[in-house]
Parts: sequence; C-alpha cells; structure tokens
Amino acid sequence: MCRWLAYSGTPILLDNILYKPAHSLIDQSLHAKMGVETTNGDGFGVGWYVGDKDSPAVVRDIGPAWSDRNLREIAGHVVSPLFFGHIRASTGTAVQQTNCHPFRHGHWMWMHNGAIEDFHLLRRDLALAVEPSLFPYVEGSTDSEMMFYLSLTLGLEKDPPGAVARMAGLVERVGHEHGVEFPLQMTVAVTDGVSLWAFRYSSRKESRSLFYSTRVETLRSLHPDVAFLQEITGDARLIVSEPLGDLPGAWNAVPEGTYGVVRPEGDEMHTFTPVT
Amino acid sequence: MCRWLAYSGTPILLDNILYKPAHSLIDQSLHAKMGVETTNGDGFGVGWYVGDKDSPAVVRDIGPAWSDRNLREIAGHVVSPLFFGHIRASTGTAVQQTNCHPFRHGHWMWMHNGAIEDFHLLRRDLALAVEPSLFPYVEGSTDSEMMFYLSLTLGLEKDPPGAVARMAGLVERVGHEHGVEFPLQMTVAVTDGVSLWAFRYSSRKESRSLFYSTRVETLRSLHPDVAFLQEITGDARLIVSEPLGDLPGAWNAVPEGTYGVVRPEGDEMHTFTPVT
Amino acid sequence: MCRWLAYSGTPILLDNILYKPAHSLIDQSLHAKMGVETTNGDGFGVGWYVGDKDSPAVVRDIGPAWSDRNLREIAGHVVSPLFFGHIRASTGTAVQQTNCHPFRHGHWMWMHNGAIEDFHLLRRDLALAVEPSLFPYVEGSTDSEMMFYLSLTLGLEKDPPGAVARMAGLVERVGHEHGVEFPLQMTVAVTDGVSLWAFRYSSRKESRSLFYSTRVETLRSLHPDVAFLQEITGDARLIVSEPLGDLPGAWNAVPEGTYGVVRPEGDEMHTFTPVT
Amino acid sequence: MCRWLAYSGTPILLDNILYKPAHSLIDQSLHAKMGVETTNGDGFGVGWYVGDKDSPAVVRDIGPAWSDRNLREIAGHVVSPLFFGHIRASTGTAVQQTNCHPFRHGHWMWMHNGAIEDFHLLRRDLALAVEPSLFPYVEGSTDSEMMFYLSLTLGLEKDPPGAVARMAGLVERVGHEHGVEFPLQMTVAVTDGVSLWAFRYSSRKESRSLFYSTRVETLRSLHPDVAFLQEITGDARLIVSEPLGDLPGAWNAVPEGTYGVVRPEGDEMHTFTPVT
Repeated sequence: MCRWLAYSGTPILLDNILYKPAHSLIDQSLHAKMGVETTNGDGFGVGWYVGDKDSPAVVRDIGPAWSDRNLREIAGHVVSPLFFGHIRASTGTAVQQTNCHPFRHGHWMWMHNGAIEDFHLLRRDLALAVEPSLFPYVEGSTDSEMMFYLSLTLGLEKDPPGAVARMAGLVERVGHEHGVEFPLQMTVAVTDGVSLWAFRYSSRKESRSLFYSTRVETLRSLHPDVAFLQEITGDARLIVSEPLGDLPGAWNAVPEGTYGVVRPEGDEMHTFTPVT
Repeated sequence: MCRWLAYSGTPILLDNILYKPAHSLIDQSLHAKMGVETTNGDGFGVGWYVGDKDSPAVVRDIGPAWSDRNLREIAGHVVSPLFFGHIRASTGTAVQQTNCHPFRHGHWMWMHNGAIEDFHLLRRDLALAVEPSLFPYVEGSTDSEMMFYLSLTLGLEKDPPGAVARMAGLVERVGHEHGVEFPLQMTVAVTDGVSLWAFRYSSRKESRSLFYSTRVETLRSLHPDVAFLQEITGDARLIVSEPLGDLPGAWNAVPEGTYGVVRPEGDEMHTFTPVT
Repeated sequence: MCRWLAYSGTPILLDNILYKPAHSLIDQSLHAKMGVETTNGDGFGVGWYVGDKDSPAVVRDIGPAWSDRNLREIAGHVVSPLFFGHIRASTGTAVQQTNCHPFRHGHWMWMHNGAIEDFHLLRRDLALAVEPSLFPYVEGSTDSEMMFYLSLTLGLEKDPPGAVARMAGLVERVGHEHGVEFPLQMTVAVTDGVSLWAFRYSSRKESRSLFYSTRVETLRSLHPDVAFLQEITGDARLIVSEPLGDLPGAWNAVPEGTYGVVRPEGDEMHTFTPVT
Repeated sequence: MCRWLAYSGTPILLDNILYKPAHSLIDQSLHAKMGVETTNGDGFGVGWYVGDKDSPAVVRDIGPAWSDRNLREIAGHVVSPLFFGHIRASTGTAVQQTNCHPFRHGHWMWMHNGAIEDFHLLRRDLALAVEPSLFPYVEGSTDSEMMFYLSLTLGLEKDPPGAVARMAGLVERVGHEHGVEFPLQMTVAVTDGVSLWAFRYSSRKESRSLFYSTRVETLRSLHPDVAFLQEITGDARLIVSEPLGDLPGAWNAVPEGTYGVVRPEGDEMHTFTPVT
C-alpha cells in the first residue's frame, strides 16, 4: 500500500504541502498512521504542472522519501498550482523507477494506493485488454500503471469517471474469471492539468482511507491564527490518503464508493460504481 | 548493445576473469573496442553457480560496472566453476535492475547482446506468445528477457538449440508481419548450470562479435610464461563478446550463424538456423 | 541508531541467520522492537570472511535491506564462519555507501550502533586525533567510522579492548571540552577474522541493547525440536542488537559497561571502562 | 576529470542549454572530446537560482547523466537566469551524492574540473586549514569540495578572486611541503547568485580547457538563421569546459592563468596568480 496527496489551487511552493505540515507526506513515509504498512519506503514520486508546459514534470526515485535530498531541493524551489506526491510501499513488484507513481501519459497524470488482488494471475489478461497502440508505453510491472493504461484504453481522456468505472468493472470481471472474490482495492487520483478526479472504491467495500480538505474560508474562520491559511486563495484543495495533521475541522472523509472532481467551475462528489 | 562473458571450467575466483585481464569486461564497460557503443554503463550483472545450490546467484545493479564497489567485493571473494558477467548499454529501455542481465528462471540463466529491431512495435505480439504460466515471471521491459521467456515457452529446458531456433524464427516472423525487414540481432549465452550454449545470429547476417577461448593446453605451450594459465585445468573455456586482451592464439571467432555448446562430455559447434 | 548482528561458528549460509529467523535482521529493518527508531532503512551492509582470503568481503548499499535483491542473493549463496550484518538508521549524516557499516581496514572489520552526541561539534578535533597515515582511509562522514579509525590509531590491532577503551575516553574528553555532558553511546562489534569483540557502553550508562546467544548445547536440550540447532556446532555464537526471535533461554543481555570476546580458545566477558 | 557549464542571462529553460545543443553537456557525459576521459559517468549535478529564493536548488545524483530521467524532467520544466551543470569523472574518490558538484554553501555555489595531485597525501593538512566553524559542512571526500571550503575560509564571500588565489597558493604550498611538484589543476566556477566567476589555472601551466561564449549580438549577425539566438537577450553568457557545438565564432578560449567575471555591470577578464 502507499500514501498520496494531490493539491490544486493557488500556485504554492511544494515544500509547504510536502514537508511543512505536522504529519506531512514525508513524515508518513516513516510513520503512516492509517495505512496497512506504517513504512512507505519503496520509492516516491512528485509530479507538477507549470504554466506554459502542457505536460507535467514527473520526478521519481527508488529510495525512501524521508532521506531523499533531491526531493527536498525540488520541493524547496518549485512552485505549482497543481501537483501530486506519492510514497510507495510495494505489494511485491520490483522497487524501480518505472514502478513509482505518479504515472504520466501526455498531459495526464495518475497515482494509486491499493492493489489488484492476485495481480500476477490477472496480469496477462489485463495486459491484453490494453489498446495495442498504448501497450508500448507500459514501462513497469505494477497493477497501478496497468489500471492507468486500461483507463486510457477505456476513454479516460474523454470521460474520466466513466473510464475509471469501466476499468474497475473490467478488473473485477477478469478477477472473478480467475476465482478472485474481491479483485480491486483502490484510491486513485487522476488529472489532465486542469481538473482533478479522486476515486475511493474496493470490491470488498472496505476501501483505504481518503480525505479532502475543507474550504479555505471555513478553515480561516476556524483557525484565524494559522499563517499558512492566509497565504492561499479560497479555491485551494487537497486530497490525501490520510490527514496531514490534527487541525480540527480540516479534513473530511471521502465516503466509500465515491468519486470527487475538483475543477475551476466548482467541486462535485458522486457515487462510484464499476461498469461491466 | 552490451558486452558479456561466460566462464566454465576449474572453479576460479571471479576476479581473475572479470577484472584482471588487460581488456577485462570491467575495462570494456568504459572502453569497448568492438561494440556499437564504446561505453556500457547502463547497469551490469554477474551470475554464478556454487556446488550445492541448484539455482545460481544473480547480482545486478543499475550503475556502471567500472565504479561498482560491491561487484569488486564479490569478484574478489567468490569462487565458481560456471559464471556469467554482463555489462549493459541500453538500446532505449529503462535502466533498472529488472532489465539487467543475466536473467534467471529456476536453475537456468540467460544473457544477450543485440536487439530486436523496433521492439516497441513487436512487444505485444511477442508477449502474447509467452506461455501464460510463465508470463508473470517477466519482470522487466527488455527484448532480451522476452527472448528468454519465449525460449522457455518453446522448450528451452528440453532442447536448448531447438528452442532458441524456434524463438528466433518466431521473432523474425512477427517482425516481418510488422514490416521489420531484419528483426533479430543476437549473441546469446544460456546455461542450466552444467552445459553452456552460445549463439551468434542476426537476420542481417552481420552479427555482433563473439569469441571462444583456445584450449588451455594449446595456450600453455604458446605462452609458458603466463602464470594464470598454469592455475586452471584443461577444460576451462571462456566465451566473450570481445577478446579480454591481445594474447596471440587465444581467441577464435564464432562464425556467423553458429552455436556452440561447452559441456563435460566435450565441446561442439553447429550451424544455427531459425525455425519457423 | 541501527541494528546489527555478528556470527562466529560453523560455516553457515548467511541466509540462515540474516533472513530465516522469525525476527531476523531484515525484519528489524522494517520493524525493530528495541531501537530508538522502528525503521532502519538508511542503508545496510554485510561483511564476511572466507577461508583463503585475509580480508573480508564487504557489500554495502544505500537502500533499505528489506527490499534489496542483491543482499538476498548473496545471503542465499555465501557460506562463512564469521560475518557481520548491519542495518542503518542515519542520525543525520548522509545516506551513502561510505557511511554504511561494516567498515573494513586490512583484515579488520567494525560496526556500531549508537552515536557521538553533537558529533558535528566534535568531528574536527576527533579527526585531528586520527593518525595522519590513517587519515586518508576515512572515506565517509559518520561518527562510527571515526571511532574505528581512532581505535586503530590507539592500538586496536594489538589490544582491541584497550584501544576501544582509549577511544571511548578520548571521545568523552573531547566531548566534555565542547560542553557535551554525555558524549558517547555505543554498541560496537569488531573482529580480526578470528576473534570477535563486542562492547556495550554509554556515557549516560543507558546503553542500547545488546544480546549474546546461549551455548548451542544448552539450547539443544531446551529445544530438541528446532532443526536449525542440530545443524550448527557447539561453538557457534551470535551477538545481536536485539533477539532474532522469542526462543526462550536463547538470549542473554550483555550487561551495561561490558565487553565480551568470542574466540577459539573460549569466550570471556569483562567490565568496560573508558581510559583517558 | 569532469565537464561543466555555467549560464547567466535571460531566464531560460535548462533544457535549451543542457540537452539541445549538438554537443551538449549530456552528450559530453558519453562522448567528451577535450577531456582526459571521454566518459563522465560518475554522477552529475545541476544547481539553479529562482527569483525569490536566496539559496539555489542543487540536484545531484550518482548515476550517469545520459540516462537520468529526473535530470531530463527538471531540465524540461525549470526556468532560471543563472545555473550550473556538472558531469563527473571520478579521479578516485567515491561515487556518492556528497561528492557530486555543484557544492553549495548559503547562497554560494561552486564547481570544479581538475584535481589536487596526490590529494590523499595533502587532505589532512588542507582539512586542518578549513575554518573550524566551516569544518562540519564538509560532507564529502573530494578535493573539489575542500577547495570550496578553503576558499570560503580565505574570504570567498568578500573577495572571490582574492580568496581563490589564496586557496590556490595554499594548495601549492601544502603540495610542495609534501613533495608534490605540480599540486593544482583547476577550472572553477563560483557564483553568489548575481555575479559569476570562472578560473583557469594549473601549477603546470597546462590547464584543462575553458571557453566563454561570444556576445549574443555578434552571434546573431554571424548566424541570423539560428532560432535559439533570437530568444535570448544580449547579456546571456555561457562558460563551458568544452564548446557545446561547432558554431563558428561562438566560443573563445579563456587564456591560461586567467579568471573572468560575468556580472550585471559588465564582464571582465584578469590574470590569475596564486597568492601565498
């Protein structure tokens, strides 16, 4: 299992989100509280958009985030309005850069916490379901990257919630064909550089935790003394595997079987159901 | 492209073969003479058998061999009667441990210099041809590992020369279906821990160089002053991408379209022709 | 802080000690129970002697031990009568190979768990105390390596307990000169390839844990059903930062302010007092 | 030996300088033409200033630059008015992050090509000459970093050319005391984030190559068809170990025993002589 966060809002130094909070993502790499594993030391990644480039930068490495100096340098010098951070705890696949999140295809970015159960049994059938023209882009060996390319195959670029629902349905169908009762466990974040979608779902209906931050205005009135909240604008939004600290009123659980979208024209939350 | 060597014979400290020769494999990582690239700095691997273990040890890493301290430590302390060494120059796939040679399956070991032309176009069809029960063992993204699992699929464990011929035939057929005129370029070494097979073949009939060492007795009479030759027994044999030095009479080119086998009951060399 | 183990006895596959026990050193890299930190993911090392070589092999790398494939390969194929294993949790110095334990000088090997308090303040004075001819061999930036070279300076090769006592006294004196009240915290293992010394000491008299294994004969009568104990001879001895499992009667705490020596002519334990 | 480049001028995407030129620094990591070694594969680094931060970002890693994906990501997304790039060929010290250039102290950045002859003999005396309060900041084991901290000790922040001259004088004096006839070989770049100084000197008066770029206006009239030249303003200036391509008129050798300064109020070049 893994931990991740997605930020959308006022352009901000990555450091403010990745390192400074009391229970930051970097702290979670050593001491996660709500994950299956407390240690997420099998690689990390950060992906960020900058104004004039379509495609995000994605920097990933295979060591633990807590001791990585390059990540700290980048976080301390890069400003972005939309970025992902991910720390990995391998569920068995190799610790290598091509297995680190986020994954990128064109201007799309994807990251995942969870697992496809018995992925080694399902991997071949799922690989065959990837659009042949996309197949060469699958570089690593994780279930997470496969889920991304299946979603791209199934229409991610036109209809993200629909494509992810079809991907989830496909994974469950293939899993059931191989005798896997509960094939899918996922919290996923995906973005095209403008909007941000987050999904919480598992076949067992016991999904990994997922939280979104309260509106900044509300937080400011709750915590007028927190300096950080004065610096960001009202549209800033965080989605995280687990809260970055204990600020009362700051974090709201994404319900089981739900997806949300954060975008310029307003946020929404909807029920998520796999489509077969 | 890459460089490799395979040793079979008297148990010997790896160091004697990997580091000590004038133009050793480690020297070739910086200054190859006969390769497409002079630098082979995209990872390395060494695999060795020890007496009482069926399965060889395989140590691989992603940095250049020339500066790797762990490789030097292992070479300086491990004795083996049968070992492979490989230095990699990536032809495009990721620099990661699962893409480093040698590859291992059970007690079999495989390494390769060369490339499948336009592998990204052929990869999906070749992946589908891998026996489904073997598919989960494919960990990396190289053509070399795929060739190994295709050979295993096509009978490597029962008939190595036949299986490699069928693999080469399959790669050429799939290549031609995708409009690739000369799909295969390879020198391959494969072993089951007892016998050692080496193949030199390319669709273009312009294969990468491959050499085997002259019988030790002959070399001793040619070079009575070379201490190293006194230490090894007569059955010691090396197969290498390029000679490890300029010892006259020591190295013989493996002819184009040929495979050889080194084994306890005597060495042989035969014509190699892909089978479709 | 870190965790380590030292083995001396019947030549044995490293795997039997490093990986197989219920709470093995590798397990401790993720889930240490008695350390200051539960995670020891800032590099690791293994050093082993083989019969015909004076100097031990030392393989070290900067990633976590729990996911390192090369360590597993080595452990599964190397047999040794005397070896060290170490997993690191950095107390601030860089995560790099030259900071990983064990450290080697000639045929001597050294590893450490603990810290010199405020080492950055003391480092220059301690570096000046290293014998000038040894100074160029200090490659890394840890307190642990400095303690080794100070011990070598102060006579380690002739009188290990005396040299370590003088080193501890020097560290405490220099610490006190800089206003550090409790300068030293250490459990140290050192060997010349024949004998093995282990030290437990701290200025605060609250040293990190250290255990030695009960005599094999005693353990066999306590646990006649444990297969492993039948395979090793009576002289096998382990010294560990924390027990490798819950075998009743197997582990004995090394008392505060004590050192022990394991050697062919019999084991001993003595009081340890710094010498100034 | 190594290769490096320093850029000062119009804020520009790093990619334009690091990757796009015909014989870019990244190309030089595999195929340097004017260096002692053609391969510079023992690590790399890039350091850049951004507007609102005093201290530059410094990203360094131990693998070869040519295959590093993170360096490419950063170069493709970071814009800076002043940056350094460095590729390393170790002259013996360990391949580790703390030995990669550029080195940073506060808002100062330093990089070097060359070597202190017999550095292992001189290292202790030079280390002692570092200001004690700066000593703890020396993290690695290279001559290059030592030269930086000696220069800081000798007044770099107030008088860069004077401090570097005193450092060179000190290195030569200590070298001569140890019987080293030609102790210093260097091309150095150093910056405070505003001005940029570059030095070419060697005790033997046979210094490694160093070039600076011709004024942009001149180049534009010489090469009206080169698109890149239209995008940068007239004050852009590059200093490089070897030319980034064959653009006639673009590159001018820095004379032996010379230093130059590039700064807002105009560039200058002066004779460089060590001061003892």
